[in-house]
Amino acid sequence: MTQRYKLTLEYDGTDFHGWQVQPEIRTVQGELESALARLGGGPVRCEGAGRTDAGVHALGQVASFSLERTWTAERLLAALNGLLPADLRAVAAEPALPAFHARHSARWKAYLYLIEERPVATPIRRRYAHHVQRPLDLDAMRSAARWLLGIQDFASFCAGEDPGKPTVREMVSIELVRRDSVLRIRMVANGFLRAMARRVVGTLLEIGCGRLRPESSRSILLARDRAAAGATAPARGLFLERVVYDADWRGAGTPLAEVSPLAPLD
Amino acid sequence: MTQRYKLTLEYDGTDFHGWQVQPEIRTVQGELESALARLGGGPVRCEGAGRTDAGVHALGQVASFSLERTWTAERLLAALNGLLPADLRAVAAEPALPAFHARHSARWKAYLYLIEERPVATPIRRRYAHHVQRPLDLDAMRSAARWLLGIQDFASFCAGEDPGKPTVREMVSIELVRRDSVLRIRMVANGFLRAMARRVVGTLLEIGCGRLRPESSRSILLARDRAAAGATAPARGLFLERVVYDADWRGAGTPLAEVSPLAPLD
Repeated sequence: MTQRYKLTLEYDGTDFHGWQVQPEIRTVQGELESALARLGGGPVRCEGAGRTDAGVHALGQVASFSLERTWTAERLLAALNGLLPADLRAVAAEPALPAFHARHSARWKAYLYLIEERPVATPIRRRYAHHVQRPLDLDAMRSAARWLLGIQDFASFCAGEDPGKPTVREMVSIELVRRDSVLRIRMVANGFLRAMARRVVGTLLEIGCGRLRPESSRSILLARDRAAAGATAPARGLFLERVVYDADWRGAGTPLAEVSPLAPLD
Repeated sequence: MTQRYKLTLEYDGTDFHGWQVQPEIRTVQGELESALARLGGGPVRCEGAGRTDAGVHALGQVASFSLERTWTAERLLAALNGLLPADLRAVAAEPALPAFHARHSARWKAYLYLIEERPVATPIRRRYAHHVQRPLDLDAMRSAARWLLGIQDFASFCAGEDPGKPTVREMVSIELVRRDSVLRIRMVANGFLRAMARRVVGTLLEIGCGRLRPESSRSILLARDRAAAGATAPARGLFLERVVYDADWRGAGTPLAEVSPLAPLD
């Protein structure tokens, strides 16, 4: 009997060429599918909630797949972690309904971006944060972020999306929190276009260092033109933090606001 | 005119074979001396406050050296960081008296050890923490730590030290703090024997998981025998956090207790 599963993954994206499987290249999906094939005794296809780019990390990526055998969560996690490389870990598993699809069933996604503001970049943070030498103008960045909230056409903030694909998304919140010398930007939306999180951060970075004015985020948004946005922020600072499905959004699960954005880095 | 310098360094020890220069091998001292030779126009010898082992990190290693030319701190840092690899950064520089020696002049050293207590190891912490699957018994570890305070013969906790070399050190404090799923052990002493910090932690780990009783730290200490101590804890969890010299111990500098033990990881 086929059983469907929902699997939560953490990874250090530094040494992966992103999520999506590609021949001869080390990807997260590729590593996971190889491990699943060994457990399942044959090819197993999985889907990921977010197709993270090369170098992007995850604290709460979600994958869905089916296995012929039924596994308890404990045994599935132990078996997978015995096969997966150390930079990719399965941290939670649960049975899911047959129709569950990690990407299509997702309601909300939270991405986190870390910026280290310090004269010299700390070596132990270099894989996990973008470095700027001078503190950014947080007020200007917050003003700019407010223009991006709500249901908006994010065409200016996407890269390489198929023409004709819808580019409207609902941005629920963009929080900016500074602690010690790290600025954390957390974006929650019902979906992110290709490179959108990094292009939003890239634009906020240009506003934070004074190269653009806060209200330019509004004109960039209204332009609906990929050439209008700021540079794409580097992948190393980005984390897919959490994917929320109906049952744990306003239901029994933890409200998104209560999830510590950086527990694993504290 | 020769000028002596005190340089503060941070490094990710993962890809270094420790501090001490060795032919054909990538070491912190080796990388620093190559960079200094390029600045100085000839060989420059430097000393490190702590000869950290392979894989051990630093948040506040101190090196001393002399250069023929006088540099401002800003220019020296910028020039060095332009030559050093990204996993080794010079974060502070100041002129020093001719007799200053990073190791011999040091009064106190603080080492920090991170233990992640979590069913599955977080990939983004895997280079910077030792992982245990179950929470350790913090009370037992604290009781055990108290026996190690004061002026004591740490012969049981050293590895490969020359016979006849003094093994008495003053352990000022051993603090254990748990936050989220990371246990931080911070040891302050007037000096650490070879592998001492990792052997103290190794013994506390065996006490924390119940394999040894808390008072065994006392019998191990009294045995003055290298075979008596617990296993050596893995290098990846250890950080040389700070080296204190006379002027900044009870003088003008920040009191040690006020230094955030983990600012760079927060």
